[in-house]
Amino acid sequence: MSAVYNYAPGPAMLPPAVLEEVRRDLAEPLPVSVLETGHRTDWFDEIAARSQANLRRLLDVPDDYAVLFLPGGARAQYAAVPLNLGAEDADYFNTGHWSVCAMDEAARYTRVHAAAEIADHDGLLTLPPPAQWSNSRRPAYRHYVGNETLTGFAFAADRHLDDGLLVADLTSNFLTAPVDVSRHRVIYAGAQKNAGIAGLAIVIVARETFGAARAETPSLYNYELQDKMDSRFNTPPVFSWYVCDRVLEWTRREGGVREMQRRAAQRAAALYDCIDASALYANPVAPQSRSATNVFFRLRPPQLESRFLREAGDQGLLGLRGHRATGGIRASLYNGMPPQGAAVLAEFMRDFEKRA
Amino acid sequence: MSAVYNYAPGPAMLPPAVLEEVRRDLAEPLPVSVLETGHRTDWFDEIAARSQANLRRLLDVPDDYAVLFLPGGARAQYAAVPLNLGAEDADYFNTGHWSVCAMDEAARYTRVHAAAEIADHDGLLTLPPPAQWSNSRRPAYRHYVGNETLTGFAFAADRHLDDGLLVADLTSNFLTAPVDVSRHRVIYAGAQKNAGIAGLAIVIVARETFGAARAETPSLYNYELQDKMDSRFNTPPVFSWYVCDRVLEWTRREGGVREMQRRAAQRAAALYDCIDASALYANPVAPQSRSATNVFFRLRPPQLESRFLREAGDQGLLGLRGHRATGGIRASLYNGMPPQGAAVLAEFMRDFEKRA
Repeated sequence: MSAVYNYAPGPAMLPPAVLEEVRRDLAEPLPVSVLETGHRTDWFDEIAARSQANLRRLLDVPDDYAVLFLPGGARAQYAAVPLNLGAEDADYFNTGHWSVCAMDEAARYTRVHAAAEIADHDGLLTLPPPAQWSNSRRPAYRHYVGNETLTGFAFAADRHLDDGLLVADLTSNFLTAPVDVSRHRVIYAGAQKNAGIAGLAIVIVARETFGAARAETPSLYNYELQDKMDSRFNTPPVFSWYVCDRVLEWTRREGGVREMQRRAAQRAAALYDCIDASALYANPVAPQSRSATNVFFRLRPPQLESRFLREAGDQGLLGLRGHRATGGIRASLYNGMPPQGAAVLAEFMRDFEKRA
Repeated sequence: MSAVYNYAPGPAMLPPAVLEEVRRDLAEPLPVSVLETGHRTDWFDEIAARSQANLRRLLDVPDDYAVLFLPGGARAQYAAVPLNLGAEDADYFNTGHWSVCAMDEAARYTRVHAAAEIADHDGLLTLPPPAQWSNSRRPAYRHYVGNETLTGFAFAADRHLDDGLLVADLTSNFLTAPVDVSRHRVIYAGAQKNAGIAGLAIVIVARETFGAARAETPSLYNYELQDKMDSRFNTPPVFSWYVCDRVLEWTRREGGVREMQRRAAQRAAALYDCIDASALYANPVAPQSRSATNVFFRLRPPQLESRFLREAGDQGLLGLRGHRATGGIRASLYNGMPPQGAAVLAEFMRDFEKRA
C-alpha cells in the first residue's frame, strides 16, 4: 500500500518524526510510563520549561507577555478573552464560521461590534479594505480569526493595525508564519492543528492586561492566576502538553516559523496552481486572502464531489470532505504535512479531472 | 530490576493491561494513528458511544441523567456546578483541601454555607454526625468531596442524605465503589485517577436541572448544551477520552464497580493493618472515614520520613511523598493498582520498621 495522507482539519496529521518519537517513548520500558507521570515531577518540569522557552523563541514573544498552556481548546478562549480583559465593548472582524462563534460567545460578556464583515464579491469571499473598517469608541480589544478553516480565508490583521489592541484566534495557522506579538493583547490557538493533539490551548497574553478580569472568571481560565501558577493551577492535560512539547522541539529543529511558512506556501501553491489551471475545481476566496493551511474548493458540477472523495480515499488520500456547513472539498495542510502530501493530492486532482 | 509500583496521587498508575493496549494501538501501522484521528469519525463515534454506555452500566446511571465527557478536569467543575445550577445558596461539606477549593471557587457565584466541617478529635480527623449538620434554608445543592486525597478522608454523603440535592466531587474514588446516582444532582470526577489520564472530566448530571444555568456560563461548560452536542460542542480531548474508554472497558471486563470495591478494600486493609500493628506509623483519620484509595500516614519521629521515601524509591516504590501542604507519606491505590502493589508496600513498611 502506498503512503497515506491525512488532510483532516484537526485533530490532524502530526509530523511523522514526532509520531515516531511518541511511539518510542510509549514503547520504552520506563519505570513509569509517560501516560502515568504526574505534573509535579522533574520530567514534567522540564517539559513545561522547554515548551515555554521554545514557543517564546519561535514567535519572538516579548518578555512582558505570559505564555500559558491551558485545557479546553481555543473555544474556551472565546469566553475567557472577554472575561479576562473585563471588556465592556469589543470589536470583532467577521471572516467566517469561527469569527461568528467567537462573537456569539463574547456577547454573553461584552457589547460586540462588527469591525468588518466578509462578503461575496463577484463570487469571491472578500473582506472590505481597512478604510472601510469601523471601530467602536473604546474597544477593549479587536478580535480576528487568523485563518478560517471552513473556507480557507486567511486574515493577518497585524499587518494593518498597530494599536496594540488585537486579539487573535490563530488555531489553524499557528506557527505557520511569523506574527507580530506586540500588536496583540492576546493570541490563542488550539494545539490540535499545528502544535500537537487535542485537549490543549496555547495562550500568549500581555501581562499589562492583568487585573481587569471579571469576578465571575473561572479560576481555571484566569490568565493572571495561571501565569502565576505556571499553567498548573489545576492538573494540566499532561500527555497533550508532552506531545505539544515534542512538536515545538521539532518545529525549532526544522528551522522555525520562517521555514514552516516557506513549506506552507509551497504546499498551498501546489494546490492553488492546480485549481487555477483547471475547469473542474473552483476556490471561492479572494486571491490575497487565500489560506496557506486550508485549501477549499468545489467541483463543477458538485455532483462529482462524492466520486472525488471516494476515489481519493481509495488512494489513501483521507479527510478531504468539507465541513458539514459548506460541503465541498477541503485539504488541510498543517505543519505536520510533508511537501509530497500536497504534490500527491495535486497529481490526483489533475488525473481525476482528465477522467471526470 | 523487580517490579516498580507508582503510588502517585494522580496522574497515576493505569491498569497494566490498558497501558499495553494503548501501546499496541499506537505501535500499529494504522493508516492514521489514534493520535491523529478526529472527533467526527466512525472510530471516535464508537468510543463516545461505548464509553457512555459502559459508564451508565457501571454506575447504574438512571436514564434521566446525562453523562458528559468534558475538558479541564474536576477543578473546572468547581465553577461549572454553581453556574449550571443557577445557585443562590449552596451547602458545602468541608472535609479538607479540595472541599475548601470547591467552596472558594463557588463563592464567586453563590452564597456558600458550611454544612459541616471536619475537625481534630483526640488526634483523629472526624466529621460531626448527621444530627449536627446544618442546612441553609433553600440550598440549590449540597456539595461534598467523596474522598479527600491529601489526608485520605472518605465521605459517602449519599448514605446519609436522600433529598436528591447532593453534588459530589468523586475524582479520587470514582468507580471504586457503588454510588446512588439518584440522590445526586451532579457527580463529577477528573479521569486521571481511576478512569484514565489527565485532561478529561466525567460529569453525570440530572437533566431536570437543565434550564437553570446562568447567562455567564461559558458554553464549553454548559451541561445542557454539551448533552445536546454529545460532549462535542468543541473539539474534545480525543486521546484522553480514548484512554478513558479503554479503562472503562477494562473496569467492566474485570467485574465492575463491586469487584473494584472488593479489591480496593483488600489493598487498603493491607496498609491499615500494617499501620495499626505498628509503633512507627500513624494514620490521622477516624476509622469509619478512612479512605480506600489514599492511605496517608506519618512516621514517629517524622525525621524518618525522608529516609523512608529514599529507601522506598530505591526499591521501586515511587510517588509516596505526601502533598506539600501535609508532608507525611501517602500511598494512592487507585483501580489500576494491582493487589500486590499494596502487599509489597506493606512488606517494605514492616521491614523498614524493624530496621528503623
